[in-house]
Amino acid sequence: MRIGRVIGNVWATRKEEGLQGLKLLVIQPLDAYGNPIQTHFVAADRIGAGIGDDVLVTSGGSSRFIDRNNPMPIDAVIIGIIDATEVERGELNGSSDRND
Amino acid sequence: MRIGRVIGNVWATRKEEGLQGLKLLVIQPLDAYGNPIQTHFVAADRIGAGIGDDVLVTSGGSSRFIDRNNPMPIDAVIIGIIDATEVERGELNGSSDRND
Amino acid sequence: MRIGRVIGNVWATRKEEGLQGLKLLVIQPLDAYGNPIQTHFVAADRIGAGIGDDVLVTSGGSSRFIDRNNPMPIDAVIIGIIDATEVERGELNGSSDRND
Amino acid sequence: MRIGRVIGNVWATRKEEGLQGLKLLVIQPLDAYGNPIQTHFVAADRIGAGIGDDVLVTSGGSSRFIDRNNPMPIDAVIIGIIDATEVERGELNGSSDRND
Amino acid sequence: MRIGRVIGNVWATRKEEGLQGLKLLVIQPLDAYGNPIQTHFVAADRIGAGIGDDVLVTSGGSSRFIDRNNPMPIDAVIIGIIDATEVERGELNGSSDRND
Repeated sequence: MRIGRVIGNVWATRKEEGLQGLKLLVIQPLDAYGNPIQTHFVAADRIGAGIGDDVLVTSGGSSRFIDRNNPMPIDAVIIGIIDATEVERGELNGSSDRND
Repeated sequence: MRIGRVIGNVWATRKEEGLQGLKLLVIQPLDAYGNPIQTHFVAADRIGAGIGDDVLVTSGGSSRFIDRNNPMPIDAVIIGIIDATEVERGELNGSSDRND
Repeated sequence: MRIGRVIGNVWATRKEEGLQGLKLLVIQPLDAYGNPIQTHFVAADRIGAGIGDDVLVTSGGSSRFIDRNNPMPIDAVIIGIIDATEVERGELNGSSDRND
Repeated sequence: MRIGRVIGNVWATRKEEGLQGLKLLVIQPLDAYGNPIQTHFVAADRIGAGIGDDVLVTSGGSSRFIDRNNPMPIDAVIIGIIDATEVERGELNGSSDRND
Repeated sequence: MRIGRVIGNVWATRKEEGLQGLKLLVIQPLDAYGNPIQTHFVAADRIGAGIGDDVLVTSGGSSRFIDRNNPMPIDAVIIGIIDATEVERGELNGSSDRND
């Protein structure tokens, strides 16, 4: 899953069937330290995320399984609102002795 | 989903079965501020998008679920025509000079 | 779908079951103006594409749906031979007034 | 599958149904020589990986098949904890100075 | 499918169910001329590929269809050992007259 921050909304009246009522949010992807990376994308939201929230986003074909009986043509969905992230810093420095 | 602008048409007479009659449009991907990013791709359209429209595009395996009983060998489909996008600027530390 | 040009053939005698007889072509991805982009990949072909043809290629999980009753372990398939592409040039210049 | 090192944890109380109790770990992707590449992502873990472990991660739609009867909306899952990696160096023409 | 060369092995004793006995190989992706591109990844192998073999690799959700009745949580699988590749060189030079 990717980490991202909700930075906006998208509205689309005319859309494919099965997407009515689905909230669409603009996401800024972040690395694990909170730095913005890559480009914005749009994710569906059913758990009530809002502007400024840091979220976990599932991309690709698994996205449609938020409703197993009703697969939707979506490729990104917010699956969690992040409470906290704890990352070890600097541990990769000594990686040269790993595979040799 | 990616944001994109419809910039062209593609015609292909000889194609895989199940794709007859499907409209194929050339898409220029955009970031949330409307700046062109990455490279063009081709998306199927069933909702009547036209040249110049800003659209939401679903990529990958979920694309075929625009018709659940008739999965098609497509990997990108327009799922909505964008009415409006509202994006918070500058909320990411140091990011204000990033997308302008 | 990606636009590409057929630039070669690949032969593999020893392969996974279910792929016997499947033609495999080397594809050079192109942007909508015909410029080569990214790196070559290999796509399956069932519609008779040949060297020099410009084609539409479906990637990822949808590829296997060229035969719904017999999903194959392939991730790229030619779904159409392009007759013509018509792309608007320069229309993205005025995009700065889009989302603000 | 990608090779990666577990570098952190993510906690999310509010999440999509079906994800309760699933452990979420921050992964730093590595090349086969142990050098960090690309950006962090978050993977689900059911086999007990911990901080510092080198792991194999499956991405995309196949991730949900860790429980075939209960597909989950996840796009990355740890499928193995690496015991050892053995890589031939220099066998690609001119590549010997590439990964060192 | 991607072209790649087998450059190593990965061993993982502790892994997800359904992966027991599956051979895991480190792959260096190549372009159609045999030049190394991008970063290594790990692919499952059931057809007996060995170090130094050039192979075709299917990525993503289709990978699990090497055994249709037993979908596995893998995202890359060797589907063929390449006997020969024949690529036209230089044919893209005259592409500027293509879409205009």
